[in-house]
Amino acid sequence: MTSEPTMHRLARRLRSHPTVRLGDDVEPGWRDALVSWARSHGLEITDRDATLAITTRPDQAPGSAWVHSPYAGIERLAPVLPGDTLLTRTTGTMPQRIAEYVLAWVLAERWQTARYLADSASGTWDPSDPPTPPDRHGAVVIGTGAMGRAIARALTGIGHRVTGLSRSGRPDDAFDAVLPLVPARDTPAPDTPALDGAHTDVVVLALPHTPQTDGLITPQLLRTFDGVHLVNIGRGSALRTDTLLNALDTGLVRHATLDVTEQEPLGPSSPLWRRADVTVTPHISGLTLPSDVVAALEEALEQIRAGVRPTSAAVRERGY
Amino acid sequence: MTSEPTMHRLARRLRSHPTVRLGDDVEPGWRDALVSWARSHGLEITDRDATLAITTRPDQAPGSAWVHSPYAGIERLAPVLPGDTLLTRTTGTMPQRIAEYVLAWVLAERWQTARYLADSASGTWDPSDPPTPPDRHGAVVIGTGAMGRAIARALTGIGHRVTGLSRSGRPDDAFDAVLPLVPARDTPAPDTPALDGAHTDVVVLALPHTPQTDGLITPQLLRTFDGVHLVNIGRGSALRTDTLLNALDTGLVRHATLDVTEQEPLGPSSPLWRRADVTVTPHISGLTLPSDVVAALEEALEQIRAGVRPTSAAVRERGY
Repeated sequence: MTSEPTMHRLARRLRSHPTVRLGDDVEPGWRDALVSWARSHGLEITDRDATLAITTRPDQAPGSAWVHSPYAGIERLAPVLPGDTLLTRTTGTMPQRIAEYVLAWVLAERWQTARYLADSASGTWDPSDPPTPPDRHGAVVIGTGAMGRAIARALTGIGHRVTGLSRSGRPDDAFDAVLPLVPARDTPAPDTPALDGAHTDVVVLALPHTPQTDGLITPQLLRTFDGVHLVNIGRGSALRTDTLLNALDTGLVRHATLDVTEQEPLGPSSPLWRRADVTVTPHISGLTLPSDVVAALEEALEQIRAGVRPTSAAVRERGY
Repeated sequence: MTSEPTMHRLARRLRSHPTVRLGDDVEPGWRDALVSWARSHGLEITDRDATLAITTRPDQAPGSAWVHSPYAGIERLAPVLPGDTLLTRTTGTMPQRIAEYVLAWVLAERWQTARYLADSASGTWDPSDPPTPPDRHGAVVIGTGAMGRAIARALTGIGHRVTGLSRSGRPDDAFDAVLPLVPARDTPAPDTPALDGAHTDVVVLALPHTPQTDGLITPQLLRTFDGVHLVNIGRGSALRTDTLLNALDTGLVRHATLDVTEQEPLGPSSPLWRRADVTVTPHISGLTLPSDVVAALEEALEQIRAGVRPTSAAVRERGY
């Protein structure tokens, strides 16, 4: 745990210097909701250094005692903010939204949505080869945080037996089983002896971006599977495009649904576009709503004033 | 309740005349599974009149004491079979399959699947106007049988408050509320005073085909709603094509997903094809698997031999 000011000291500073800076990166459509939240707590909006900075960018938060990320990702802030700065983040309803995105696209693939939308648009009645239930009931969720847990619950709801892979392998009641996943940088082949890849139909990547997750989904790990539908809603850096293309071409992955990619926006020349076995969506699964940001700030402020470390505070050395 | 042979009498007849006829309408791919089920119970396969007929067609079942429909629908059998013939049907995993179809298409519409599939196919990264959670959390399921109940549970799982409409209005724990729906033939406007159409986002039709459900979804009933996604997985006869087109054109229905239509196959000139606000699928939601038919027969035979009326027996005068 990094050294941090006590919450009491931060609460005093918020009283003596009741200032808030909204970073240049805060979406224009969110400013009204955030300004009115700040004013309701007697906090003054400023364009200069402030006690609380609401931003994803370190350069917008010099001298702030508290930085709140309006999104869940804190990869730009975590490595460079001074250790005594409180860093909180917005998760809000995002885990449920992301789980619904995963459910929508897992079912879209299973029910041949692309085919029937095309048939409906062209006036084709073709009942041959209809969707049938999957032969394999396993699902694997890599990453067992709030998002991974919500995804596991959604997949359980459509009949999957869900295995989680996490750094610790610690059991979690959202999963039927949790296995440890050793980062690729430490051992070449992840140590997943008990993972039953042959009975797995769906694999979901729900990893944050950290140095440890960068390239974590190795060709070796993908060789555990056979013809799975792979969905990535975490960060694009976990899975190299070349590694994925190879897994698609060799049949380890039958379809990939990617809400995140190595580069975003994905360039027009990317080989991921225009493939029938790849669906790219433009990073829309984890949409944060302004009401989520306000709710996260409200809860954090209440906890700070009560002298309690906010539940939305990031664990800095883990990067999320 | 029609008069029926006692199950003991039927069990005796199955012992003295252990014969089964597979109707001409039984899918060729199912015959092996059904023949091997019959033989495992000492039942002889015949092409002539048999004690048990497995068919949807009355002309394939003359003189049979027991007729088993390999599908859930019994509209051809129910009106014409002698009253003392036992009529059973296959539901199997169909309610769960149909509920999954509804979930898949409700989420496909909500997550703008058609748009993102087109963007992915054309190499377009457009994060503007992403899907947002619905403002309205109500869902209405018309028909509260096994299918309606499974659908209600699936919609509850994605956060809906689900109201069922049924003939009786009898409470059912799969629904948050059940209201009575008076058939259109009895009263011009269905008596649904407490139905909160304004907060309804999704309406699912899960009605069997009976004289009472024919045209049950009247223009008056649809006027209860405002901009709903309507999904029909029951029978096409419940909703006239003209009534639906009018509701789409006036905005009462924002999108229709139809697995069943008034005519099937839907003719190439139908105005339902090629509309962006209508998705037609070729009656694929309620796929019955041969294992479902065998399981239904096995359970029915066991109950008959124990002198118990099979749980899969149709209530003839209701038509399902």
